[in-house]
Amino acid sequence: MIRLRPIVYLLSFIAVIEAGFMAIPWIVGIALGDDTVLAFGVTIAALLAIGIPFIVKKPVDPHLSPKGGFLIAALSWVVLSVFGALPFVISGYIPDFIDALFETVSGFTTTGASIVNNVEALPKSLLLWRSLTHWIGGMGILVFIIAILPRFDNRIIHVFRAESPGPQVGKLVSKLRFTARILYGIYIVMTVIEIALLSVEMSFFDAVIHSFGTAGTGGFSSRNASVAAFDSAYVDGVITVFMFLFGINFNIFYFVLIGNFSSVFRNEELRTYFFVVLFAIFSVATVNTLDNVYETFGESMRYSSFQVVSVMSTTGFITADYTLWPTYSQAVLFILMFLGGCAGSTAGGLKISRIVILFKTSIQGIKKSVSPRLVLPLKIDGKRLDPAVASGVTSYFSIYMLILGLSFFLVALSNSHLGHNDTLLTSLSSVVTCINNVGPGWDAVGPVSNFSGLSGFSKLVLSFDMLAGRLELLPLLILFYPKSWKNA
Amino acid sequence: MIRLRPIVYLLSFIAVIEAGFMAIPWIVGIALGDDTVLAFGVTIAALLAIGIPFIVKKPVDPHLSPKGGFLIAALSWVVLSVFGALPFVISGYIPDFIDALFETVSGFTTTGASIVNNVEALPKSLLLWRSLTHWIGGMGILVFIIAILPRFDNRIIHVFRAESPGPQVGKLVSKLRFTARILYGIYIVMTVIEIALLSVEMSFFDAVIHSFGTAGTGGFSSRNASVAAFDSAYVDGVITVFMFLFGINFNIFYFVLIGNFSSVFRNEELRTYFFVVLFAIFSVATVNTLDNVYETFGESMRYSSFQVVSVMSTTGFITADYTLWPTYSQAVLFILMFLGGCAGSTAGGLKISRIVILFKTSIQGIKKSVSPRLVLPLKIDGKRLDPAVASGVTSYFSIYMLILGLSFFLVALSNSHLGHNDTLLTSLSSVVTCINNVGPGWDAVGPVSNFSGLSGFSKLVLSFDMLAGRLELLPLLILFYPKSWKNA
Repeated sequence: MIRLRPIVYLLSFIAVIEAGFMAIPWIVGIALGDDTVLAFGVTIAALLAIGIPFIVKKPVDPHLSPKGGFLIAALSWVVLSVFGALPFVISGYIPDFIDALFETVSGFTTTGASIVNNVEALPKSLLLWRSLTHWIGGMGILVFIIAILPRFDNRIIHVFRAESPGPQVGKLVSKLRFTARILYGIYIVMTVIEIALLSVEMSFFDAVIHSFGTAGTGGFSSRNASVAAFDSAYVDGVITVFMFLFGINFNIFYFVLIGNFSSVFRNEELRTYFFVVLFAIFSVATVNTLDNVYETFGESMRYSSFQVVSVMSTTGFITADYTLWPTYSQAVLFILMFLGGCAGSTAGGLKISRIVILFKTSIQGIKKSVSPRLVLPLKIDGKRLDPAVASGVTSYFSIYMLILGLSFFLVALSNSHLGHNDTLLTSLSSVVTCINNVGPGWDAVGPVSNFSGLSGFSKLVLSFDMLAGRLELLPLLILFYPKSWKNA
Repeated sequence: MIRLRPIVYLLSFIAVIEAGFMAIPWIVGIALGDDTVLAFGVTIAALLAIGIPFIVKKPVDPHLSPKGGFLIAALSWVVLSVFGALPFVISGYIPDFIDALFETVSGFTTTGASIVNNVEALPKSLLLWRSLTHWIGGMGILVFIIAILPRFDNRIIHVFRAESPGPQVGKLVSKLRFTARILYGIYIVMTVIEIALLSVEMSFFDAVIHSFGTAGTGGFSSRNASVAAFDSAYVDGVITVFMFLFGINFNIFYFVLIGNFSSVFRNEELRTYFFVVLFAIFSVATVNTLDNVYETFGESMRYSSFQVVSVMSTTGFITADYTLWPTYSQAVLFILMFLGGCAGSTAGGLKISRIVILFKTSIQGIKKSVSPRLVLPLKIDGKRLDPAVASGVTSYFSIYMLILGLSFFLVALSNSHLGHNDTLLTSLSSVVTCINNVGPGWDAVGPVSNFSGLSGFSKLVLSFDMLAGRLELLPLLILFYPKSWKNA
C-alpha cells in the first residue's frame, strides 16, 4: 500500500503556499481596481479551505520513497495548474477551462506558449499572476516548501530529486533545507538585479514581468510583440545576458560565491554550454548577415544572439521572426530546442549534461566495438561516471523520443480531424517546443503567432508534454501507471 | 595490427562480382545499341583488372574479427558505389561524379532518392543498372558472396552480421553458406513472381525495373511519375502486396516453407508490423476520405495503402503526392519512415524489432522506478531478451539520433550557404528519408521532386547517411575512427 497520508499532507501545503503566492496579484488587483479581485479571492478561499484542514491535524512523518517523491511531484504540479487556472476562468478573461489550463501549465512549466491573442488587453493583476507562475515553476514549488519548512528536510530528498532537472541531482550542503535556501537566495537576488537593470528603460511593472519570464526561462511577456515591443538594444542586451545566466546550473553560482573556482572550471557541462552558445550566435549572425536579413553584422549580432540564447535557455522571448531567417539559422534554433540549458538551472530541454553523456556513451560504444576487451570508463568533470547514470540517460532519451513521436501523432490527428488542417511543421514544432519548455515553434505556432488555433485535445496533449518535460518524464508517466498507486 | 590481406582479398572478390553483375546491363546495352556500351565495358575492365590479381594469388584464410567484419562491410559498399557510379559518369548521362555517386549509393542502399530530372531520357541499359543496384543492395553483396563461395562460410560470420539488418542476427541452419543460399533463393523466387505478375499490365522491362525496386525496397522507377505513370489499380495492388512482403523478415518465409508455423505466430515483430500497417492504412484512408482528398473510400484505400506500405517498407514508390494530404496522413508517413520494416528484411529504418525493444525497455524503466527491487526480465517472442541486446538498442538509437541531428545541421548549413535557401522541412526530411533509406521527403525533396537541387556537400552528407542507415551505423562510423585501422 502506498502511504497516502504524507501525500495528502504535502499537497495541502502546496495549496496553502499557492494561495500565498496568489495573494500578491490579488492585492495588486485591489490596489489597481482590476475586475479580477473576486476571481483571485474565490480561488484563494478555495485553496485555503482545502489545504488548512489537513495541515492543522497532527503532522505526519513526510518520509517518502523515490516513487512517493515522483507521485508527489506530479500531483503537486497538476494541483498547482488546475487551481492556478481558476482566476483566468472565473474572471472571464480566458473563459474556456482547457485554454486556461494550457496557459497555466505553460506558465508553471516555464514554457511560455500562450493561447492569449491580445496580451495587452489583460488586467495587470492577471498578467502578474501569469508571469509569477514562471517564477514559481522555474526553481520549483517543492524546493520552495523544503526551503521554508524545516520539518521536511532530508526526509523528502526524493521530492527534491523529482522536481530538480538533470541526470544527477545532489545537495550542495548536508542539510537539504539549506541547499534549497541557497538556491532560492541566488534566484531571488538575480531576479531583483534584473528588475533593477530593466527598470532603466521600461516601467517597473514591465521590468517585473520580463524578469519573472527570464528567471524561470519562461517567456510570457506583457506585450503582444514580446521583447521586440521595447525596441531597445539595452533591453535586448540585459535580457540576453540574464537568459544565458538562468540557463546555467545554480550550483555554479554557489561555487563562485564560496570561491570554489576549480569546481567551476572543471565543469564540462558549463564549458559545453558556453561553447555551443558562442558558436551558435556567431554562425547564425554570420549566415543572417550574408543572407542580407540584417544590414550590418552588429545588428545581426543583436537579434541573432537574443534569439539563440532565448531558444537555447528555453525562454522563448522574441525580438525577431526567426521563421523568416535562412534555413541554417532555423535549423540551429530547432536543434537548440532539444539541447536546452544546463541541469540544475531553470531551463528545459534535454539538458546539456545529458547530451554530453549521450555523446560520450556513443563514442564509447564505437570504441568498444573496435576493441571489445578494452576497459573504457566514462569520465565527466574528470571523475568516473556511474554506468547506471549513463544507461539512465540513454533510456531517458528513448522514452523522451517515444513520447515526442506519440504526441506528434496525436496532435496531427487532432489538427486534421477538426478541420483546421495545418502544416506538418505546426504539429511537429508545437510538440518539440512544448516538451522542451521553449514556447514558440514554427508556422501556425511560430514566433508571431500563438497556440489559440489548436484543438482542445491538442492543448491537453501539449499540456501533458510541458509537464513531462519540466518534471523530466518519470513523475508524469508514473501518474498514468495504475500499479504505482497500489504498492510501495 | 589489423590483418589487411583478408580485407584486400574479399574486396577483390567484391570487384569481380560487381563486374559480373554489370555484365547484365552491358549485354542489354549491346543488344539495344545503347550509347553506354563503352562506359560499362571500361568499368568492367577496371573492376576485373583490380580484382583478379589479388584473387589468383594463394587464397588467404578469410577469418575476421567483428571489427574486421565491420570494416569489410563498410569498405565493400564504398567500393561498390564508387565503381557503380562510373557508367553514369563515363556515359555522360550523369556527368558530375558526386551526383552519380549519390545516385549509386541511393541505389545500393535501396533508398531510391534520385538526382535525375528526366528518368525517361536514360537509356534502358543504364536504367537497368540503376535498378539492379537496388536488387543487389537489398539482400547484400557480402551475403551473396557467402552464398556462392563455399570457402568463406562460417569464418566470416561477422561480415554476414555487419551487412544483415536488425538487433539480433542469427543463422537459419548450421552452415552460414546454406543460410545465405536460402535467403537468396527466397529473394529470387519472390522477385520472379512479381515480374510475372507485373508483366500482365506493363512491358517486361518495366516489370523487371519495378520488381527490382520492390524487392530491394528501393524505389527507383523507369518513369518520371513513378508507379503513378501506369495508372492501374492492378499494378498498384501487386506492388503494394510485394512491398509489404519484402518488408518482412526473410526468416519468416523460411519458417513457412519448412512448416514451422509456431515460430511465425510467436513472432512479435511480425505481429506488430501487421498491426501498424493495417492501422496506418485504415486511419490514413479514413482521414483522406473525410478531408475529401478522394471521392470514395475505395479510391482512398487504393492510394493510402500504396503510400503507407511504400513508406513503411522504405521503398519510396509514388502514386500520390502525400504532401498535399491532411496533416495527420503526412505525420503518419513521417513517423513510419523512422519505424521501417522488419529486421532481416530488405527494408530500412530503425526496424520494428528495435521499436518493440525500445518500447518494452521504456515500460520496464518506468516499472522499475516504481518497484526498484522487482526483477522484470524483458521478453521477446516469449523468450527472455539478453539485457546486452536491449542496451545495445537504446545505444543504437542514441547514435542514430545524434547522426541525424548532425546531418540536419550540415545539410541546412550547406543549403543556406550556397544561396539556394530552402525550407526547414526540406533539410530535415532529406536527412530523415536518407538515413532511413526511404527516398522521397517533403518540400524540395518531396514525392513529385528530386534531390538534384541540393548542394554537392549536402549530397555527400546524405550519401553517408544512406550508407550508415543501410549498414546500421557501426561499420560506417568505424571507418572514420582512425584507431580501428591500427590494432585488431
